[in-house]
Amino acid sequence: MDPFLRRDGILFAEDVSLEEVALCYGTPCYVYSRAALEGRFRAYQEALQGQKHLVCYAVKANGNLGVLDILCRMGAGFDVVSIGELERVLAVGAKAEKVIFTGTGKREDEMRRALEVGIRCFSVESESELYRLNAVAKSMGKKAPIALRINPDVNPQTHPYIATGLKDSKFGIPAARGLEAYRLARGMDFLEVVGMDCHIGSQLTELDAFGEALLRLKELLEALALEGIHLRMVDVGGGLGIRYRDEEPPSPDAHMSLLKSVFGVSSGYEMVVEPGRAIVGNAGVLLMRVEVLKQADALYFAVVDAGMNDLIRPALYEAWMDIVPVREREGVEARLWEVVGPICESTDFLGKGRRLALQEGDLLAVCSAGAYGFSMSSNYNTRPRAAEVVVDKGRHFLVRERESLPKLWEGEYRLP
Amino acid sequence: MDPFLRRDGILFAEDVSLEEVALCYGTPCYVYSRAALEGRFRAYQEALQGQKHLVCYAVKANGNLGVLDILCRMGAGFDVVSIGELERVLAVGAKAEKVIFTGTGKREDEMRRALEVGIRCFSVESESELYRLNAVAKSMGKKAPIALRINPDVNPQTHPYIATGLKDSKFGIPAARGLEAYRLARGMDFLEVVGMDCHIGSQLTELDAFGEALLRLKELLEALALEGIHLRMVDVGGGLGIRYRDEEPPSPDAHMSLLKSVFGVSSGYEMVVEPGRAIVGNAGVLLMRVEVLKQADALYFAVVDAGMNDLIRPALYEAWMDIVPVREREGVEARLWEVVGPICESTDFLGKGRRLALQEGDLLAVCSAGAYGFSMSSNYNTRPRAAEVVVDKGRHFLVRERESLPKLWEGEYRLP
Repeated sequence: MDPFLRRDGILFAEDVSLEEVALCYGTPCYVYSRAALEGRFRAYQEALQGQKHLVCYAVKANGNLGVLDILCRMGAGFDVVSIGELERVLAVGAKAEKVIFTGTGKREDEMRRALEVGIRCFSVESESELYRLNAVAKSMGKKAPIALRINPDVNPQTHPYIATGLKDSKFGIPAARGLEAYRLARGMDFLEVVGMDCHIGSQLTELDAFGEALLRLKELLEALALEGIHLRMVDVGGGLGIRYRDEEPPSPDAHMSLLKSVFGVSSGYEMVVEPGRAIVGNAGVLLMRVEVLKQADALYFAVVDAGMNDLIRPALYEAWMDIVPVREREGVEARLWEVVGPICESTDFLGKGRRLALQEGDLLAVCSAGAYGFSMSSNYNTRPRAAEVVVDKGRHFLVRERESLPKLWEGEYRLP
Repeated sequence: MDPFLRRDGILFAEDVSLEEVALCYGTPCYVYSRAALEGRFRAYQEALQGQKHLVCYAVKANGNLGVLDILCRMGAGFDVVSIGELERVLAVGAKAEKVIFTGTGKREDEMRRALEVGIRCFSVESESELYRLNAVAKSMGKKAPIALRINPDVNPQTHPYIATGLKDSKFGIPAARGLEAYRLARGMDFLEVVGMDCHIGSQLTELDAFGEALLRLKELLEALALEGIHLRMVDVGGGLGIRYRDEEPPSPDAHMSLLKSVFGVSSGYEMVVEPGRAIVGNAGVLLMRVEVLKQADALYFAVVDAGMNDLIRPALYEAWMDIVPVREREGVEARLWEVVGPICESTDFLGKGRRLALQEGDLLAVCSAGAYGFSMSSNYNTRPRAAEVVVDKGRHFLVRERESLPKLWEGEYRLP
């Protein structure tokens, strides 16, 4: 079910026209569909039915409180990578025991806070982190529940910037050192070894590498059992891709079926999965307005009011994202447009060579912008960050105000 | 004069040890040298002595109020690309008549505000913008002073993301259409045609393309004069490179000498130049701490507490930036380190294969991080943005507070 469909030539989010959203909140503006968020989350829940499990939404994809709240109400767990993300999920009333703390450079103050509120599990990424977490837990007289993040050395065939499970990656502990690392952890008095974690990359459109990684985890789990180290939780990370153009990523059901076929209900493991993009990516668009149409030598440029500060994926990952008109234009010739932002560098583009019929003032939507859109946005060129809106059937709610200018230099000072 | 020198093995900013800065303000932290800022600005002023001129600092490079204030006190003009940047310079007391408004997608509200405060000149980038600006000025009963930004179609041999003067660029009006565009502008009642503008790219380390562009401007100025269109201002943009590694960019003096040799004092033109990186780039470092040292297969990783959210240049432009220890370590073996941030994607690196002797807890500095560092930073992974500090001889001043966590979700709402 696509929540962004056309009615009489006008693009809607659920039952609200995007023209109405632009009128109410201005542009640029991120618009999310509640039904889409819930539908994708439910797909994961249903795919894991009958299996002890926890679906931990990866907050880094989109940490807006409105989005987190919707998922929290559905019973989601959360995958956080910083104390900031932890505080976000606590702010919407999430229970700490449903939170997994992953990430490769946790600071001591972050560990302390997570122990204080009692999170479900730390995903530990290095031997060094084991020592540090043990020391922090000791200083608090607590035991820290941990999984070790194992790097399975598989190649997920995605953009090198978002592959994380190759052997030359900064993430995790190489599988070959896994046994040794678990022995080390077992010997630490303030750690409770509960699970194993793995994450091989992002925007995966095939399951082969995922399956391969699962087999490596299983081998290691068996080797651990022989040593009397019995784990109760397996966290297989996230990374399922979405359709941006013509990709055909597996469904959450196919993804989870593979997991169940490798481990099976009878294994007794609690299965944790950390989808981010797969839940929120297709649930959002970036709404923007054409400011200026101009012709260079052989190229036509549509300068819009959203820039790389609002959406950096095209510039950073060379990501192709679909750009569609909110209202289909008649009587204007379609041609190929370079859709660019107003920021003063050539990096600032949203799409190249897009066939569109445009006039100045037209509204456009960048599709599938729900994940890694707002969450990566900046104030470059002193541009306030966009508003964020959630549509729920026929209603729309502001879930983040557009930033005001003076807020951008709050906390800045001149010299005396 | 390099403001960042070692004393007894410890890196200083002017007369303040970076260890002291880290102790006072924590890490990650941007540290700027007032003497370096002033020295570079003065170099431009002196290079243009005897010539009617205005050095307009490009705010987009670093818009911190403390930095702007220092330059403003020295008499700087400002190149702004958004209403936000305009408000920043007004906030430090800059006079509007020293402000140039450049940029390819100016909105009407931005034009209106700039007309209201009375800026020196709009750099207009398209015919469409001429019509729009004329209409806005008319509605206010004002005349808008304008320069046309001419795209000279020269190749500055820099990263494609920061080349802006090629014919397939979104910037400016192609030189071949220049004459026609000036005729159009002359015929508009609410525009005052005062100048010509040009900007060919960023981080230029050779002057050839710059010289070529100047010749094209000169040709067009002569052609305009034949039609009775006499301009009083020539804005040659910015873009002078700095040394990141082993580049040997021309000095401001060489840059400006070329300008003077093409146009000459006797031409009577006011010369405007828009340096940004050339003023602030080498005047700042990013101070950070090593959180975790770890070994993958064949690689060694130093995970630091600054990430791509703090400094995106390495990830976005594949930019090489030097990374040096604050205190030189003895008794630790130097080896090649991948210096990476704590953010959960492989994009998040600051430097690859850097020979360093490191222990956890060590302080490092990313050099030449004064430009396009903080100004491009984000809250990705819900990370508060870094503190910013200015050092002035033996004293240090906080010019931007580290963001607090709750501030990051100010203005966000859950659904009712």
